Amino acid sequence: MTTYTAKQIHLISRPGGMPSHDNFSIVNVELNPPGDGEVLVKNLYMSVDPYMRGRMRADAVYADAYELNKVMYGGAVGEVIESGDSSLQVGDIVLNGAAWQDKFVAKANTVSKLEPFDMDQLSLYLGTLGMPGLTSYVGLLKYGEPKEGETVFVSAASGAVGANVCQIAKLKGCRVIGSVGSDEKAQWLLDECGVDAVINYKTCGDLSDALAKAAPDGIDIYFENVGGDHLQAALNVMNPFGRIAACGMIASYNNSEPAPGPNNLMLIVGKKIRINGFIVSDHGDMRPQFLSEMIPWIQEGKVKSRETMVEGLDNAVDAFLGLFSGNNFGKMVVKI
Amino acid sequence: MTTYTAKQIHLISRPGGMPSHDNFSIVNVELNPPGDGEVLVKNLYMSVDPYMRGRMRADAVYADAYELNKVMYGGAVGEVIESGDSSLQVGDIVLNGAAWQDKFVAKANTVSKLEPFDMDQLSLYLGTLGMPGLTSYVGLLKYGEPKEGETVFVSAASGAVGANVCQIAKLKGCRVIGSVGSDEKAQWLLDECGVDAVINYKTCGDLSDALAKAAPDGIDIYFENVGGDHLQAALNVMNPFGRIAACGMIASYNNSEPAPGPNNLMLIVGKKIRINGFIVSDHGDMRPQFLSEMIPWIQEGKVKSRETMVEGLDNAVDAFLGLFSGNNFGKMVVKI
Repeated sequence: MTTYTAKQIHLISRPGGMPSHDNFSIVNVELNPPGDGEVLVKNLYMSVDPYMRGRMRADAVYADAYELNKVMYGGAVGEVIESGDSSLQVGDIVLNGAAWQDKFVAKANTVSKLEPFDMDQLSLYLGTLGMPGLTSYVGLLKYGEPKEGETVFVSAASGAVGANVCQIAKLKGCRVIGSVGSDEKAQWLLDECGVDAVINYKTCGDLSDALAKAAPDGIDIYFENVGGDHLQAALNVMNPFGRIAACGMIASYNNSEPAPGPNNLMLIVGKKIRINGFIVSDHGDMRPQFLSEMIPWIQEGKVKSRETMVEGLDNAVDAFLGLFSGNNFGKMVVKI
Repeated sequence: MTTYTAKQIHLISRPGGMPSHDNFSIVNVELNPPGDGEVLVKNLYMSVDPYMRGRMRADAVYADAYELNKVMYGGAVGEVIESGDSSLQVGDIVLNGAAWQDKFVAKANTVSKLEPFDMDQLSLYLGTLGMPGLTSYVGLLKYGEPKEGETVFVSAASGAVGANVCQIAKLKGCRVIGSVGSDEKAQWLLDECGVDAVINYKTCGDLSDALAKAAPDGIDIYFENVGGDHLQAALNVMNPFGRIAACGMIASYNNSEPAPGPNNLMLIVGKKIRINGFIVSDHGDMRPQFLSEMIPWIQEGKVKSRETMVEGLDNAVDAFLGLFSGNNFGKMVVKI
């Protein structure tokens, strides 16, 4: 009986503020071969995402909390290397929820076989074609309800979610303004993604003023990834009957003490604004429609994807920490 | 030619924080008799409402700003005392937008003839059957979308809007929790309006704790009249997929400096909450449906109305100021 050794990243203590390496440890475990109905998967790519920070809290509301001294989890793409189930063959590529480990055994029905349109772009299934892509699509189309000619403001606009929001909004005939934290990201959005205006929030001075200047006719939709000053500026510049798709508020994820919110929430009433918080896992029903639009957009070059690829599971924690300092450019992926 | 003298209340300076008598003056003006197509109306009752504070700001977004040194305006019920238009007769009762004056001349088509179901309850057309009543109805039913068995939290629950929200929610089969600022108001909601639990926010200690105790199964809908701590508590205790109908945020209306918002807005994402700001003037289409439900509810004693009646136009400013210290119990009305 062949056994396998898997490398796993465990959460060993809960971070108070910004997480550090001390909160994690690398653990080697022995795996038995897959039993009947099971598969053994070797992960090729794993995702690190901001929402994982929420799972490190004991009082996680966003998703279940990670347990201490157990392997964490999240989106990954792997290859079946041994199969005890007739539905999957060795060599099949599968999307799975077992990130943070290089190999794992699981029931065959807990992974999804992919029919990749390009074997060199498997990591897209963790980004533009995966959870972040569907998040963009659901948030913008279902909750933003963009109409041709409207103005859309996107925070964290070059990120895994934001960059898709920008490009889908352009494809739907909107004017798009993005906010990013570096001039390099700004230039990419302008040159490659066709975004109409970009604000570098680190250097623009007052964000409300910068947004008002970039959106002289106001904004109709705000795709919220950041919170804090970004939400305040969006409310200030929003037109009546504006919509906010609230996907995340990364500015607050590492606060050890809760920070006060915007001082202009009264504008929600006066401007008759709608805010929808949402989590992509409630919207799996939109996946077929999403893929039917997104795959051609990618193949035709209408949606560009940018990735920051970190090599090695040993560097996954660094990749994750980098999300909070904006080290990623586009989707942060770990190649295992 | 008979002329008339009208007494008017003018805004003569814009308040920075809490308004005072110095911001207003009483002015007598001569009125010509109504011309062709016009009517002369003697107001019987006028409304004072929190939203009027917004109109005193130069940068009003909620509604147009009042002009300085002109008569203010708002909802009133009056009697036609001279008519130059065949559509209205002397003695007709009309709903009008010309509050803050005891008499006025206007085009006949700018006032609405009422067919009061009880001449002794004309002031109801400024409250339960008027703008505040429609506000309650639209906010709760259109934006709260209550389902039988759900829990509704209402702030400013004994106010002109809140008391109707509480009672409509009960009629729709919900459990209702109100927040008020006095034990007398709390007792009225419990005894007369059938509210299930009431919190006196001035004496309850931590509002989130008090709300969690009053709503052990969480809240599904929050009818927002107050903002600040109330919004923060509602977010803390809200169930996934909760709805917030944002009608007003009176806690902030007199701030000279904007106050920071709740520190837990991230819960909007995690709990997948929807917030809708709204203003009743966009929802006139729901008035017929509203009246067809509300008039029978009043006649059958299923919706109770409480009013604080202030006598005399000279006391209208005091009545208005009283709204911000909770001096009103139910709808604040001025009998002219």
